[in-house]
Amino acid sequence: MVKAQVSLEHMYRVFTKPEHHDSKLAQIEQHLSDNILDFLSQHVVTKKTSLEEIEQDFSDSRVPESPEFVSSHAESLLDKLVAHSVNTYSPTFIGHMTSALPYFHLPLAKLLVGLNQNLVKIETSKAFTPLERQVLGMMHNLVYDESDAFYEQHLHSARHALGAFCSGGTVANITALWVARNKILGPQPGFAGVARAGLNAAYQHYGINNLGVMCSRRGHYSLSKAVDVLGIGREQLITLPCPDQTLDPAMALEAGKRYQQAGNKLLAIVGVGGTTETGHVDPLDELADVAKELGCWFHVDGAWGGATLFSSTYRKRLKGVERADSVTIDAHKQMYVPMGAGMALFKNPEDANAVRHHAQYILREGSKDLGATTLEGSRNGMAMMVYASLHIFGRRGYELLIDQSIEKASTFADMIDRHPDFELVTSPTLSLLTYRVCPAAVQNKLAQASDEERRIINEKLDRLVVKVQKQQREAGKSFVSRTRLEAPRYPDYSMTVFRVVLANPLTTHNDLAAILAEQHLIATTQPLWQQLCELVDSDTETAAASG
Amino acid sequence: MVKAQVSLEHMYRVFTKPEHHDSKLAQIEQHLSDNILDFLSQHVVTKKTSLEEIEQDFSDSRVPESPEFVSSHAESLLDKLVAHSVNTYSPTFIGHMTSALPYFHLPLAKLLVGLNQNLVKIETSKAFTPLERQVLGMMHNLVYDESDAFYEQHLHSARHALGAFCSGGTVANITALWVARNKILGPQPGFAGVARAGLNAAYQHYGINNLGVMCSRRGHYSLSKAVDVLGIGREQLITLPCPDQTLDPAMALEAGKRYQQAGNKLLAIVGVGGTTETGHVDPLDELADVAKELGCWFHVDGAWGGATLFSSTYRKRLKGVERADSVTIDAHKQMYVPMGAGMALFKNPEDANAVRHHAQYILREGSKDLGATTLEGSRNGMAMMVYASLHIFGRRGYELLIDQSIEKASTFADMIDRHPDFELVTSPTLSLLTYRVCPAAVQNKLAQASDEERRIINEKLDRLVVKVQKQQREAGKSFVSRTRLEAPRYPDYSMTVFRVVLANPLTTHNDLAAILAEQHLIATTQPLWQQLCELVDSDTETAAASG
Repeated sequence: MVKAQVSLEHMYRVFTKPEHHDSKLAQIEQHLSDNILDFLSQHVVTKKTSLEEIEQDFSDSRVPESPEFVSSHAESLLDKLVAHSVNTYSPTFIGHMTSALPYFHLPLAKLLVGLNQNLVKIETSKAFTPLERQVLGMMHNLVYDESDAFYEQHLHSARHALGAFCSGGTVANITALWVARNKILGPQPGFAGVARAGLNAAYQHYGINNLGVMCSRRGHYSLSKAVDVLGIGREQLITLPCPDQTLDPAMALEAGKRYQQAGNKLLAIVGVGGTTETGHVDPLDELADVAKELGCWFHVDGAWGGATLFSSTYRKRLKGVERADSVTIDAHKQMYVPMGAGMALFKNPEDANAVRHHAQYILREGSKDLGATTLEGSRNGMAMMVYASLHIFGRRGYELLIDQSIEKASTFADMIDRHPDFELVTSPTLSLLTYRVCPAAVQNKLAQASDEERRIINEKLDRLVVKVQKQQREAGKSFVSRTRLEAPRYPDYSMTVFRVVLANPLTTHNDLAAILAEQHLIATTQPLWQQLCELVDSDTETAAASG
Repeated sequence: MVKAQVSLEHMYRVFTKPEHHDSKLAQIEQHLSDNILDFLSQHVVTKKTSLEEIEQDFSDSRVPESPEFVSSHAESLLDKLVAHSVNTYSPTFIGHMTSALPYFHLPLAKLLVGLNQNLVKIETSKAFTPLERQVLGMMHNLVYDESDAFYEQHLHSARHALGAFCSGGTVANITALWVARNKILGPQPGFAGVARAGLNAAYQHYGINNLGVMCSRRGHYSLSKAVDVLGIGREQLITLPCPDQTLDPAMALEAGKRYQQAGNKLLAIVGVGGTTETGHVDPLDELADVAKELGCWFHVDGAWGGATLFSSTYRKRLKGVERADSVTIDAHKQMYVPMGAGMALFKNPEDANAVRHHAQYILREGSKDLGATTLEGSRNGMAMMVYASLHIFGRRGYELLIDQSIEKASTFADMIDRHPDFELVTSPTLSLLTYRVCPAAVQNKLAQASDEERRIINEKLDRLVVKVQKQQREAGKSFVSRTRLEAPRYPDYSMTVFRVVLANPLTTHNDLAAILAEQHLIATTQPLWQQLCELVDSDTETAAASG
């Protein structure tokens, strides 16, 4: 490899000299701009490469001593990295919440890095600060629909925050519960508040044994991270069973009362607006009532489903979200913004003051610096991508995208339902669904099997689903994820299922049919399939013999 | 404004149709690529525009109803946003840690968004996962310099983590202290550990009143955020006075012992490797001894200064960093990577297990998913930018950049020292320094003034510095920040000073001379300057009269 010169002159050139138009990196860029789908299909290698093989390419732990030319490095990035990345733009990548992005984000990404603003303070962001506040205002408006006067008063106020922009839903959830904790265990005469005095002193002052957060078993794992980080403890995340995939309000009320009667304080109920695993929406309106009755914070994790509010047809599925004290929405999910655009929104614009902080060189008292109420410090200007998307799609554009995703999920559910060898496990509320592969005869058998027989069959089916999911992923044409969950049919059994997220607008019905066909083909060639069929056959024979 | 069509076909086009080469957005992009300095100087308006005026452009809180064409939106982004952003690339923007970036990051930004990987799990990142692990390994190696066998064993191990990549230094500091807290208050027979049982139960089990974190008064404000979030409480951040800008080891030892004798547990000492305000480095080696004697965690916040380790000449200024349990380094500071690349490194690769978490659909037991030990969930592939930078600069390239920054700061300090009307307040250890404007005669007066006279003069000087800093910023040619701090000369007085960060390799000595000249010009035309000079004149007259 030709090594670059070790001189300050060369280093300055790296800062000041644009890529030559026929340099390797410029070529990569051009190809990306001309046709990203073509670029990805040409460069992302779909053939099976094991992680261990890839790790070989990234195994040198020493910082390279000498500089390398940009172009020769670009070559190596293409070979080692791009070739073995995941084609998240592919219409047949329907396993997770990452999908194709609109084209305009490519040039905007360059503008973002070109401007390299830091939104922690106005001195390094200027117009980006009011822009981010406006984006938070628009999202707040989408959820809470307050009056024009309300937004006029709070949008650019130094003493208020309609939300906190952050890198993603996990930080948004932590931020919301941080605000809740600091507000609910706030200062009182003779007590400086939990932010200053700490959790231990707060428990003593308020005379409580424990602080708890309640959600269903489908609550996102970031909630258990949140209670860990915040010092509450993972054991105080009360996760209620939910065979129907949603948090039962009566059960929540009862569990909450029991918790309180034991000398504990319930900090928050978290309703999920589109669970990560099945896309179900908790009964938010009823849960708001429960939270009110229990006197606790009500947070809605709408990281995935929040964008459903753009749809006049489906926004009612989130009814009650406007009663939440805080709401998480990720723009990098159903708003098709690149990774790294989370938001926590606050119903009450004063609540963020519970975590307000200052420094001598920035975030001074009375400043409008955004960093005064965010968990993160230095942050980039991703809000620009959300701003651009909100304008380029508009509410009605997003509505069309949301509607087609939900309708596509419903069509796919029908396809699964009609296929004799598949079993729909959870129907889509939004654009997620889960199902499994299961020979038709075995489905019949399960309907009348004993508990023990059912357990044996389900365990085999679990293994079959894992095998099919892995082989399909490794074949590289398409990707569906998997998870384990309890479903209405077998409420006491945590079964393994395929999980599908229909996020990509480019996914067609034909793509879905092909994915199902591929899974069927892989499944029927497994020894496990044979074993399952034999199980049923032997039953039939026994029945025939004894008949 | 021409509104775009509200149809699914149009929405699909936004996903599939590249920007036409002469569209507005493509033009912006082309100009960025051709010559970013020219682009910024043409588009970023340097004339004074008040924040209130800019806010008018971002005051509509409603999500626009109808879609907009990309090009017409690009036009509006250019007018409203880009024009009023901050030119962080400017060689005369020397007030904060954000500076010009190398050119290759522009095309790489596009590649990053084009690939849109999510590094929380391998299924959405594939080669990006080993790449990020390698980057963490290289940075770990830079700090800890362990054996090849050590890295071979841990770099790609599912049960170990050499660090955690995150959005920035604040999250890195929180992550490090989270790990420390969970490890030090870990599980024991009869106790599930703080992660599960919570802080209150941990205090009871370990029989402690409070948990504390110690640093100097120059510790970054993210540390007080960290103790708040983690439930420890801001009052338990023990910030020791530091007229010399560094944490005194003897004072730290004594304060730590006193704290422990009062029935408290000292969680951690945080040494700063380049304070945000003055760039001073705490005596890390001695502080490591203190931490050892007190039996607590030792964290080094090297968000800014960590990159000094690339320099053979100056790395000794961080001596002892290799004894830290954890170290924070931001690649978006002195490694010239775009905003959003923080890292927490762990000396012991098992420590991150103290915060390990799982879910059913990802981060399964035994997987190598990076999300299992990070505070954030979904994350983008910024590690690619660090990887590329490490290769394109190499250690020796970074060394040249670090060396010239430190040497430039030293030259600037000399210029200030030689100027009769400026007073150097803190000399540069790395590439930061602070100073203030002060008429020569007033400097002489201060040397022999009474306490009361000194207070009066210093207060006037504080106001003068604020005036000059604001007017210079508003004039738009250059930017220097300001802060308040105690300095050796007036240890009991928190004075206002100019703060300079010499990060930008493109900043020349002429730029620095011009900045000083501009400040002098602004200062001498202030009524405050006149008042200060009169104060001294009247003294002289009084002396003459009484002489």
